[in-house]
Amino acid sequence: MAPFHCLTFLTDYGLDDGFVAACHGVAFQIAPGTRVIDITHLVPPGDIRRGAAVLAQTVRYLPPAVHVAVVDPGVGTARRGVAVAAGDSVFVGPDNGLLSWAVAGVGGATEAVSLTNRALWLDTVTATFHGRDIFMPAAAHLAAGTPLARAGDELDVASLVTLPSPESRIGDDGTQAEVVTVDRFGNAQLSVTGADAARAGLVPGVRATLAWEGHERTVAFGSTFGEVAAGELVGYEDSAGYVAIAVNGGSAAQRLGLGPGTRVTLTVTK
Amino acid sequence: MAPFHCLTFLTDYGLDDGFVAACHGVAFQIAPGTRVIDITHLVPPGDIRRGAAVLAQTVRYLPPAVHVAVVDPGVGTARRGVAVAAGDSVFVGPDNGLLSWAVAGVGGATEAVSLTNRALWLDTVTATFHGRDIFMPAAAHLAAGTPLARAGDELDVASLVTLPSPESRIGDDGTQAEVVTVDRFGNAQLSVTGADAARAGLVPGVRATLAWEGHERTVAFGSTFGEVAAGELVGYEDSAGYVAIAVNGGSAAQRLGLGPGTRVTLTVTK
Amino acid sequence: MAPFHCLTFLTDYGLDDGFVAACHGVAFQIAPGTRVIDITHLVPPGDIRRGAAVLAQTVRYLPPAVHVAVVDPGVGTARRGVAVAAGDSVFVGPDNGLLSWAVAGVGGATEAVSLTNRALWLDTVTATFHGRDIFMPAAAHLAAGTPLARAGDELDVASLVTLPSPESRIGDDGTQAEVVTVDRFGNAQLSVTGADAARAGLVPGVRATLAWEGHERTVAFGSTFGEVAAGELVGYEDSAGYVAIAVNGGSAAQRLGLGPGTRVTLTVTK
Repeated sequence: MAPFHCLTFLTDYGLDDGFVAACHGVAFQIAPGTRVIDITHLVPPGDIRRGAAVLAQTVRYLPPAVHVAVVDPGVGTARRGVAVAAGDSVFVGPDNGLLSWAVAGVGGATEAVSLTNRALWLDTVTATFHGRDIFMPAAAHLAAGTPLARAGDELDVASLVTLPSPESRIGDDGTQAEVVTVDRFGNAQLSVTGADAARAGLVPGVRATLAWEGHERTVAFGSTFGEVAAGELVGYEDSAGYVAIAVNGGSAAQRLGLGPGTRVTLTVTK
Repeated sequence: MAPFHCLTFLTDYGLDDGFVAACHGVAFQIAPGTRVIDITHLVPPGDIRRGAAVLAQTVRYLPPAVHVAVVDPGVGTARRGVAVAAGDSVFVGPDNGLLSWAVAGVGGATEAVSLTNRALWLDTVTATFHGRDIFMPAAAHLAAGTPLARAGDELDVASLVTLPSPESRIGDDGTQAEVVTVDRFGNAQLSVTGADAARAGLVPGVRATLAWEGHERTVAFGSTFGEVAAGELVGYEDSAGYVAIAVNGGSAAQRLGLGPGTRVTLTVTK
Repeated sequence: MAPFHCLTFLTDYGLDDGFVAACHGVAFQIAPGTRVIDITHLVPPGDIRRGAAVLAQTVRYLPPAVHVAVVDPGVGTARRGVAVAAGDSVFVGPDNGLLSWAVAGVGGATEAVSLTNRALWLDTVTATFHGRDIFMPAAAHLAAGTPLARAGDELDVASLVTLPSPESRIGDDGTQAEVVTVDRFGNAQLSVTGADAARAGLVPGVRATLAWEGHERTVAFGSTFGEVAAGELVGYEDSAGYVAIAVNGGSAAQRLGLGPGTRVTLTVTK
């Protein structure tokens, strides 16, 4: 395997402690010429689905890389650490589903190993910080040119843990979906692509009824925030290709009380 | 134009999502040898004035660079995207005033283009994420050596949108100013330079009355926090050259209820 | 002194302003080939002990480097700025104890200078931002190969300010310690190493009574979070080698009201 010029890093470690820096230090000592791009370290602690969603939506804009992702509530228990080849990249992290949406998004796993080769780990491995002690050093070695097969025992890619996809269904009674993520601006991304929604008539120019948890609101569909008046609701295909609900100049999530997992129905207003 | 070795990046994207990383990934694929310095991504959503102030005050310590700044509530509407040559740098972002204070601070725009050359954009451009799809790829091409004129149609620099400067006035009735920004420590920066304030008698060693919104407090002028007792107010010329009000070991903004836009008057105590 | 390939940076500057970026810009202009690793910039304002703890625990995973740390409530007053050689690195910052635990952790200071050579500073030095104007430019020059002795006047290393270590004592009445830091996950790190605690019988498999400020709880000792049920307390040797108290899937600090400085006693349950 040719060495990678880039290594990316996503965790729930936060930015208050030295955890991320310790991992950067480990990577630099093994692969000093490799650029490190931090995706985010503010995944809510232990929130595997949120980590999976951010990774999957960001990865298509990243260069071929070793992508290290660690949201790992089971650290130190029997869950495996894995390295998964997919597309033109390698994904490294705990085998708890965190990597699965990104791997599927780039075409699926072509090869995978369990990270069992201790020669790629730090000399001392703690029970609670595998990001620093196992995942990052193994990833840096892979970035520096160590072949995937040398990172550990080969796995059947069908055995990798996958997260269930968020639900969505388009029917006569409207488009049913759930909120996948809420971004910094309070825009609520739904589990339905813009392309699928368009087939259900949810296109710029129409108005729709958004129903959730006993509430109902009218939403104008458009293509960007500024097409509705300040403070108004707008539905649009977001920059990741999914339908999202926003407030122009405000937070839709806060205004409507939407959060990850909220089930919603969208019906085109006749 | 010689290539730039550095690209800087300021946005209101926050650090919770993968937005900043997607832009970094785009830049790396176009200009892999260019160092990226993040200025901040925590500009409050849509707060163009705050973004403009941070950019203008930071840029003088940055190397010659392509400076990308995106605080863009009008994304996807008719507002232009621009690249502006000024000093030894190029500024890239929406033409909404965000760049204007920094551009003025380095000597004013010498040349500008509207970013109309789609060959420098990503293949697919979404309506809500021009930072990733237009500004960053165009900036990375400029950093890699693409001449400014090739980024789009030439503009009259006089047509660039500029933000009004914060108000200040020095008169017989004292120095009138407004709070421009509040930093992490709660220090409130005023819209009057240390040099101007000195002409009004506000120099280390004097005491002054700070009046705002019906309140009044005495402030000792000095040159740093530790010159007053813990918990005491101090006025000083801050590291950007403006008068600021601080509390030694505390937050002046919180204590006094000062925020961006608060109008204040400072009068030297006889 | 051979040039360093890495420079690290820890401050209480926060991420909202352009302060960190200004320092990055200064470093890049002096030592463009040096990688910068940010440790954290979210040390609570002025909290020297927190900064010292994060620096000391992170530094052992960082490459040989010039480590710049600035938590500096006395900026601009008589406190010295110093550069301290220790282990295979150089530590740069205010002489207020911030560097002391890290320096001790890598074997102690072998040489130190007061940063008095203005030729390594920026041309203009403000009274309140020595990180940008003195520490970072001096550090970047050291990283680029300037010998330590040229940074200023030699100091007796015994004259460097040191922070008192957090207290701990192992006796017949149990292990007395204090909370040193709380991390993002709410895990409370105590001032007793796993090795010392083991000598007091606090090893995986035992149960102990945790007493603090009139409260008492039973804690199961293990080696990682997942060894207790969700929501249960666990004591373990953390990734820095200290005993910590966690809640599996939750925040021990929040649940128990523990914070830096809280004194606790751990007694093995017979």
